[in-house]
Amino acid sequence: MPDSLAGRDIITIDDLNKDEIQLILNQAARFEELRQRRRKFDLLDGRVLATLFYEPSTRTRLSFETAMHRLGGDVISVAEAAKSSSAAKGETLTDAARVISGYADVIVQRHPAVGSAQEAAAGATVPLINAGDGMGEHPTQALLDLYTIQRERGRLDGLWVGLVGDLKHGRTVHSLSRALAHWDVRLTLVSPPALALPATVTGELRRRGLTVHETDDLTTAMSACDVLYVTRIQRERFADPAEYKRLRKSYVVDQALIKHTNPNITIMHPLPRVNEIATDVDDLPGAAYFRQAANGVWVRMAVLTLVVG
Amino acid sequence: MPDSLAGRDIITIDDLNKDEIQLILNQAARFEELRQRRRKFDLLDGRVLATLFYEPSTRTRLSFETAMHRLGGDVISVAEAAKSSSAAKGETLTDAARVISGYADVIVQRHPAVGSAQEAAAGATVPLINAGDGMGEHPTQALLDLYTIQRERGRLDGLWVGLVGDLKHGRTVHSLSRALAHWDVRLTLVSPPALALPATVTGELRRRGLTVHETDDLTTAMSACDVLYVTRIQRERFADPAEYKRLRKSYVVDQALIKHTNPNITIMHPLPRVNEIATDVDDLPGAAYFRQAANGVWVRMAVLTLVVG
Amino acid sequence: MPDSLAGRDIITIDDLNKDEIQLILNQAARFEELRQRRRKFDLLDGRVLATLFYEPSTRTRLSFETAMHRLGGDVISVAEAAKSSSAAKGETLTDAARVISGYADVIVQRHPAVGSAQEAAAGATVPLINAGDGMGEHPTQALLDLYTIQRERGRLDGLWVGLVGDLKHGRTVHSLSRALAHWDVRLTLVSPPALALPATVTGELRRRGLTVHETDDLTTAMSACDVLYVTRIQRERFADPAEYKRLRKSYVVDQALIKHTNPNITIMHPLPRVNEIATDVDDLPGAAYFRQAANGVWVRMAVLTLVVG
Repeated sequence: MPDSLAGRDIITIDDLNKDEIQLILNQAARFEELRQRRRKFDLLDGRVLATLFYEPSTRTRLSFETAMHRLGGDVISVAEAAKSSSAAKGETLTDAARVISGYADVIVQRHPAVGSAQEAAAGATVPLINAGDGMGEHPTQALLDLYTIQRERGRLDGLWVGLVGDLKHGRTVHSLSRALAHWDVRLTLVSPPALALPATVTGELRRRGLTVHETDDLTTAMSACDVLYVTRIQRERFADPAEYKRLRKSYVVDQALIKHTNPNITIMHPLPRVNEIATDVDDLPGAAYFRQAANGVWVRMAVLTLVVG
Repeated sequence: MPDSLAGRDIITIDDLNKDEIQLILNQAARFEELRQRRRKFDLLDGRVLATLFYEPSTRTRLSFETAMHRLGGDVISVAEAAKSSSAAKGETLTDAARVISGYADVIVQRHPAVGSAQEAAAGATVPLINAGDGMGEHPTQALLDLYTIQRERGRLDGLWVGLVGDLKHGRTVHSLSRALAHWDVRLTLVSPPALALPATVTGELRRRGLTVHETDDLTTAMSACDVLYVTRIQRERFADPAEYKRLRKSYVVDQALIKHTNPNITIMHPLPRVNEIATDVDDLPGAAYFRQAANGVWVRMAVLTLVVG
Repeated sequence: MPDSLAGRDIITIDDLNKDEIQLILNQAARFEELRQRRRKFDLLDGRVLATLFYEPSTRTRLSFETAMHRLGGDVISVAEAAKSSSAAKGETLTDAARVISGYADVIVQRHPAVGSAQEAAAGATVPLINAGDGMGEHPTQALLDLYTIQRERGRLDGLWVGLVGDLKHGRTVHSLSRALAHWDVRLTLVSPPALALPATVTGELRRRGLTVHETDDLTTAMSACDVLYVTRIQRERFADPAEYKRLRKSYVVDQALIKHTNPNITIMHPLPRVNEIATDVDDLPGAAYFRQAANGVWVRMAVLTLVVG
């Protein structure tokens, strides 16, 4: 088992092997356990985190910044980097990251273009963490999803996980499913055919040994799964508004459906949710999505600590 | 006398009884007294404040953030929450506040819609402080106004306070006048009839025992009052531009007017001022508005300390 | 030699005499030397820096904020002050700075209008540092440029410094050239005639004893100079697009040109660079521009420490 990721960039979940993922999850668990006794650690005292957000993502940014504060570090932030004078003047992401490396000890970057994190990492002389590059990757989201599943169910091996919603465009489910392939997990993919997980991804998952079922029937899937990971279906993905209306309705998880199919199921969501989980689910013990969001802090504390070293 | 407001939301000034208001004012005074000896307290060390501003209000935000820093705490901030991706995707304020509760120990929210603070507080699992909800409430402004009056005049009981300007739309004067009703104060309301304090508010104030005079004559009011609280009259409130021009001129406080009517009067203003207080007033000993703004820090330190507990 | 600049505003580089500039450079060098042993100083513990940016300038803002954090202080920030409600309502910069003085111990302001820093300083009751006022001044940029030259070449006296690019509009080169006039430096100005340093500035420099050459030939200048300070030529400065194209090309510094003319030359740039320095220069030992950007932190730590006192 490694004991550090010092100096490492984290661009995609595939940058981490199973031992490294486990190291992060264990470190996150240690921070959460100590939560009651210690509000703040001095592990990163005197260190500076730069959050560079070329598109807004409030909760990812706040979650990283909270993590840094709870580690005793400081934060410099560009909430709207796309409007910065340097970007407007045509500076490359590579140059920008190199300059920011002169100020900060670690950089967290979000950008709408696939590959932008790699481009910035080429210039950065400090660790760079990808907090989302368009349809690309968002590795710390996958890590906090894994952490939440393990936390809610006590283990990862032997679980049956359902993914429902827009599995075609959802960056989150691509990263999570690849991360889950390190464990002995069974996946059920629930989506309308037009929004199915791309065949290249399901193919890769199967090659790596995962059992993958595909269906468009949410009710049956829920009966079988231990965990249901819900994602939003966006109107703009549909040519036919009537089709959107029909599907949006058929993939709503509410309290009645849970009680009918599987009262013990764990419900997750990367948030924000709109209509796909009814608010009457919030009070069920299996409604894990707000705890999932909060877990982002422990996981990001672990990542920051390990890459800054 | 209570000794804590631990866990309490502060949505409106009416959430606080007289003892609780007095507790806040006393705690604020203690912070101000210690100012010279101690720049920073560790009362909220390891705690995180989230400032969520769905409309800009630079000085309210900076004042809260300064207060948190001077208490040893950390700050995460969304200066333009309305443009956040989550709000754009249709997330409710209730969900947003619940997620942020996973990061922060206390939330300060500003939003243009009346009732938005209550909506967010329904989701928050940490104390939520309303920093303005449209035409609704802004309770810490009323508290710092009370603090300033007491600080400048040595007491609240027995004072004669004038409120001048747009008393109809001004959230500030509604909250302040209701807060003053806890003390033995005489109010004079100075405004053009079209911008008078709503009759429901004056009725409530009188029922609660306040003596309330109404006039449109600033000069006479100033001669009688110990404190004059000036607010801005906005052009857009008037159908007739000529009427606006006439009134704007008749409600300008300048050095000559003060010397003529009441050299000892205390002049307050929630700021920013535009033309309603001439800059030649700034150097008079009774010009309290910049001290009033600075008092926001002591009062918000007190509020943060007491609600986080 | 002075030992403090306590309470001083820094509006223009001319506010500082040679001893005071030297004091800042020495203090910056001390911070840089201690860098390995101490990540953070408690010199400004309990102090608050306010960064007020009425136009975006990400790296200047982040550099000041990093400096404040490394000094143990806290930061309150308005990244988009022009959109603040107070500015929109017509508040003067003088009033705004006076209010912020109630929160912060030092203010750093950036604004697009010449003279805006002076206007704000008139209201501020704490030190105000100009971080750029349009075509006016940006004194800490000149200081970090001086620091970098001294750091890269071991001295300032006796050097030959070339300035190339748009010398007419570049605030940076105006301030830097005036600052260099305190030392025994030879200047070569390289620009198309239409973008030459204004005659009033060259006249002043010569009166103050500087030897100043003017040319439009970059190659010859590079052969002679110890340091080449490159600035961007902006398309919008030219009436004739063909003229812009020709010039942009003739003022590109690349690895071949450096090896051909002067392999030991130090290359500087205020950044962001676009095309005027080829990326193949980045790996040369004389490519100092990223170190120059990083030096901003040491210099701003020195300035903040000395003015807060």
